Amino acid sequence: MKLELHAVESIDDSALAARLQHLLDHKTKPLGALGRLEALGLRLGLILGSETPVFAAPQMLVCAGDHGLAARGVSAYPSDVTWQMVENFLAGGAAVSVLARQHGLALTVVDCGVRHDFVPREGLRVLKVAAGTADAASGPAMSTAQCEAAIANGMALVRGLPGNALLLGEMGIGNSSAASLLLARLTGQDIDACTGSGTGLDAAGLARKRGLLREVLALHADAGTPLAALAAFGGFEIATLVGAVLQAAEERRVIVVDGFIASAAVLVAQALRPHVVQRCVAAHESAEPGHRLLLEALGLEPLLKLDLRLGEGSGAALAWPLLESACRILREMASFESAGVSQREA
Amino acid sequence: MKLELHAVESIDDSALAARLQHLLDHKTKPLGALGRLEALGLRLGLILGSETPVFAAPQMLVCAGDHGLAARGVSAYPSDVTWQMVENFLAGGAAVSVLARQHGLALTVVDCGVRHDFVPREGLRVLKVAAGTADAASGPAMSTAQCEAAIANGMALVRGLPGNALLLGEMGIGNSSAASLLLARLTGQDIDACTGSGTGLDAAGLARKRGLLREVLALHADAGTPLAALAAFGGFEIATLVGAVLQAAEERRVIVVDGFIASAAVLVAQALRPHVVQRCVAAHESAEPGHRLLLEALGLEPLLKLDLRLGEGSGAALAWPLLESACRILREMASFESAGVSQREA
Repeated sequence: MKLELHAVESIDDSALAARLQHLLDHKTKPLGALGRLEALGLRLGLILGSETPVFAAPQMLVCAGDHGLAARGVSAYPSDVTWQMVENFLAGGAAVSVLARQHGLALTVVDCGVRHDFVPREGLRVLKVAAGTADAASGPAMSTAQCEAAIANGMALVRGLPGNALLLGEMGIGNSSAASLLLARLTGQDIDACTGSGTGLDAAGLARKRGLLREVLALHADAGTPLAALAAFGGFEIATLVGAVLQAAEERRVIVVDGFIASAAVLVAQALRPHVVQRCVAAHESAEPGHRLLLEALGLEPLLKLDLRLGEGSGAALAWPLLESACRILREMASFESAGVSQREA
Repeated sequence: MKLELHAVESIDDSALAARLQHLLDHKTKPLGALGRLEALGLRLGLILGSETPVFAAPQMLVCAGDHGLAARGVSAYPSDVTWQMVENFLAGGAAVSVLARQHGLALTVVDCGVRHDFVPREGLRVLKVAAGTADAASGPAMSTAQCEAAIANGMALVRGLPGNALLLGEMGIGNSSAASLLLARLTGQDIDACTGSGTGLDAAGLARKRGLLREVLALHADAGTPLAALAAFGGFEIATLVGAVLQAAEERRVIVVDGFIASAAVLVAQALRPHVVQRCVAAHESAEPGHRLLLEALGLEPLLKLDLRLGEGSGAALAWPLLESACRILREMASFESAGVSQREA
């Protein structure tokens, strides 16, 4: 198959932006007193193309996949935790399950390439390209065809989901390594700065991880395009998220970016279609050090800084009520005129 | 009358803290991966005395009052905005109205000393000590009796409210001046560092405000105790909040602190009863520069930093879902054992 990527148009609409800013400036509060919530409202209004933005059927999408590189000890946890956590998501016991339930977010868990056969059930989509990626330290993690299949899966997945907001989540033991490699390759930053302790490596483990990732980066020195880099470093869950992000961007859904790995998927999508990031809101800045670099590369300012480093979409879910608040401020707050409140003096 | 302040016991319970930490450490996530949300869960469990904390009937309390000092141009807005905003709170059009509605927070608006007679209605409590404080630049803002009456009002108010969580809000043109004066007096910091532009003074206005507050501070050089300082600088809404905080602390409710002015009330309450702050959660750090100093003095770390500077309880309402999440993590997340997920290797 040949992957067909659609256009993602700019949503830079200065007339709508001016109308939104005028509305915000005349709400019953000192000018700018709701701080970053006002900028968020403006952004959401632009994405949804409305002065009274309303979220409909927000979707939490948790993409899971295994990584061949995990066998080399880049994670503190064994690969089996990927499928075990998928079971936990579906059973409702994981952090993202709890938070999605709290906020009324529909939760879809996707087997993009887990080394496990799941019993089919509600809430699980099996779009498995293969049972885990190959070891990126000895060859490409995915073939070009596999990479394109995973992206196409993500696009089809989002086409089939209702709503106008997509929250990104992921699970995959070893996937902070793939995110570090993508960040280093696509932004040219040193791999050491892009690499952190993930789920909790100690200092010696981190040093080994950095050394290994430097070798993997050199092995794939010719993987210079976004798609080549994605195929070289993996994984299936990241590629599926890339497709999901591209589709959501084309449809002008609000994309709520979670942590380091979800952000790496956005980085790839943005490299492919440069207006993608206009649709994105960064939920939080992770404690994983590469995440700050990644958000800076995307030009996104995170809403929360709570030292989270869990992934799953947990940070996106935690930030969700702030997005809802920003829309409600636009829709429901009175203006000075409508409320009969005096404006500032002089 | 003679004000009777009850004891506020320490809730430092190391056995419960250890049990809560053990629960958090065995949830299905890498150790500490939910960052500050875990510390928040621990704190809420300690305040509510439970390993499975549940919020009941959370109350947003917005205390309003006018300030004699406002006539001296310390605010960009006229004093009439206080009563107009009270009407706006009650009509449902203010930021705090919108956010309280979003999160299912019961909203009580209190006339603690507004220069206006309100028509009685649902959601409004009239506990007016006087129609605005006196001008603190020419004498004490409140008499001792007035100050004690306002504190007693706040205590009685909270005794009559259901639930186990209290969110603090306020409204009062000129009240950032009172908060700056209380901060300077109770912590000994320079008044310039404690004073910001409030609702939006320009540079010249801020310079005038700082000069005036320095004079007011000097005028009341003998107001050294927390109660004397509160009476000297005002206002009725701050004193009512002091009483509300003391009562909530005695009853072991969770106290969600909003911005600069609500925090100043907590500072006074804490100076009176040193275990008050154990019950407090700082919702956010305001753009008003004194707020950071105030939170540091209280030893509280804010959850949000969104450059808010509105007051009303808006920041407390915005942070509320994070408190709810922290409780749900404790109650609903699976442990490694219960979910059958492998622990970390070696």
